[in-house]
Amino acid sequence: MSTRPAATAISPEQAAVEQQLVETVIASFEGTQDSRLKQLMQALTRHLHNFAREVRLTEDEWNAGIEFLTDAGHITDDKRQEFILLSDVFGLSMQTIAINNETHKNATEATVFGPFFVQNAPEIPIGGDIAGGASGQPCWVEGTVTDTDGKPLPEARIEVWEADEDGFYDVQYTNDRVAGRAHLFTDQDGKYAFWALTPTPYPIPHDGPVGKMLEAVGRSPMRASHLHFMVTAADHRTLVTHIFVEGDPIIETGDSVFGVKSSLIKRFVQQPPGTPTPDGRELRGTSWARTRFDIVLAPTLDLK
Amino acid sequence: MSTRPAATAISPEQAAVEQQLVETVIASFEGTQDSRLKQLMQALTRHLHNFAREVRLTEDEWNAGIEFLTDAGHITDDKRQEFILLSDVFGLSMQTIAINNETHKNATEATVFGPFFVQNAPEIPIGGDIAGGASGQPCWVEGTVTDTDGKPLPEARIEVWEADEDGFYDVQYTNDRVAGRAHLFTDQDGKYAFWALTPTPYPIPHDGPVGKMLEAVGRSPMRASHLHFMVTAADHRTLVTHIFVEGDPIIETGDSVFGVKSSLIKRFVQQPPGTPTPDGRELRGTSWARTRFDIVLAPTLDLK
Ligand SMILES: [Fe+2]
Ligand SMILES: [Fe+2]
Repeated sequence: MSTRPAATAISPEQAAVEQQLVETVIASFEGTQDSRLKQLMQALTRHLHNFAREVRLTEDEWNAGIEFLTDAGHITDDKRQEFILLSDVFGLSMQTIAINNETHKNATEATVFGPFFVQNAPEIPIGGDIAGGASGQPCWVEGTVTDTDGKPLPEARIEVWEADEDGFYDVQYTNDRVAGRAHLFTDQDGKYAFWALTPTPYPIPHDGPVGKMLEAVGRSPMRASHLHFMVTAADHRTLVTHIFVEGDPIIETGDSVFGVKSSLIKRFVQQPPGTPTPDGRELRGTSWARTRFDIVLAPTLDLK
Repeated sequence: MSTRPAATAISPEQAAVEQQLVETVIASFEGTQDSRLKQLMQALTRHLHNFAREVRLTEDEWNAGIEFLTDAGHITDDKRQEFILLSDVFGLSMQTIAINNETHKNATEATVFGPFFVQNAPEIPIGGDIAGGASGQPCWVEGTVTDTDGKPLPEARIEVWEADEDGFYDVQYTNDRVAGRAHLFTDQDGKYAFWALTPTPYPIPHDGPVGKMLEAVGRSPMRASHLHFMVTAADHRTLVTHIFVEGDPIIETGDSVFGVKSSLIKRFVQQPPGTPTPDGRELRGTSWARTRFDIVLAPTLDLK
């Protein structure tokens, strides 16, 4: 925890001046018609001022903050979103996910969406391959989608996406190839299975202001190896999550965006070359891996 | 004050998940070499998360925030600084000024610097005119610069700048004309005087995201009429401030950047056409105004 300067460090007159200013700013939002917007603006004012007052923000530090935001704005474009990265590395994205996906019985936990999802990824049948030519170790992923009572959810839509073994998503390729992403549907028993690639770690984009900040605070930009899921089924809360690879050292040293939850860490069991595959696929002497991810969706209504 | 959702609205399990995340993010900054940077990052984390948790920030609202910052970044360039405006309208700029210019005995209070100061404004003699051709009612400004014991400070440097009667600073003109700004020095008795323009109100730039925000919350972008001062003297704290015009209705309805302090509101006494001027200047039958601003500088050292 950070050191809070003792309240006694400033005079009562000074504290009164500062507090009066906070109250004046809060009052300035009183006329906001939208009551939710009013609540947000007033709370933001309170927390911003509390931060500045607590740390006794210097004018140089305020300037550095303005410059940081300016640089972040200037590197941001259609393909690069530095403000999302900023939110990610402060854990604010993950906190927003947590707030909006409250723990519910045994429902699978959510984690960050990330910037690499693409609409309209190809559909594959159960047992199909999402790789689309992306490089990496083949990995068999299987499981069920059920409700919190264990009832199978047929026809649940499962979107999956991941980076290749070099740590790149297809949208980061220089061509328009679609790879490492697909969607499929559960069968009548709520079961699904597909071939993917064993996830490998990759850094978040770190050649901009957020990367510089991570360096200054001695943090790594690396994300723990993961495979993205988004699961939708009628009358159930959409689940956006990842599965992580048990034993990945980044889980211990810290995922750069705080996406890891212990319930989402799965065993990816290595299979030596020649091990028969679940669907008889011929892998020509390469090793492969397999994992299981049973997904439980919370109902949309009556979440309490 | 905003409504804080009751803490009971979330389950203890949910609260624990959220609190655990905050602590994980704070711990991620533990390795920061610079102890001040560590303090800032950890405090910012705490306040950001407290904000999001308190208001139960929705994913849509988080997205709107990301878009707002992106738009602010894209409108910002060498001439336009939307992040400073944002800080200004949340009173954060003024709070930073307050924190770094603690009240000290009878020293003149500071206020926001604003974006319109320019280095190397022309020097004028005592009694000179800062207008440089800018339009507006002539206004005689006089006073002294002293220390907190009333001792005159000779050779104190006074920078003054202001908008013309249409509400524009020279840097907003389409040409490179220098107008409405100058610097001068106090005489051996700490006295100064100059001709300026009677200040008039103007809006902060409001054709961007900050302007949209002000509209959504029902706030005006108008600044109370003011004349900027920056006063420097050896061994004294540099004073950045304004004087405001007593009776300006915007003082009552609210300055958009919260710069007004009652000690900085001055009487600008209107003088009918033909009233003799202090220095014999011939104003050819126009009205003019006069005001007095006695400036007290705090010492640099030993501020407690
Ligand atoms: Fe990812
Ligand atoms: Fe101004």
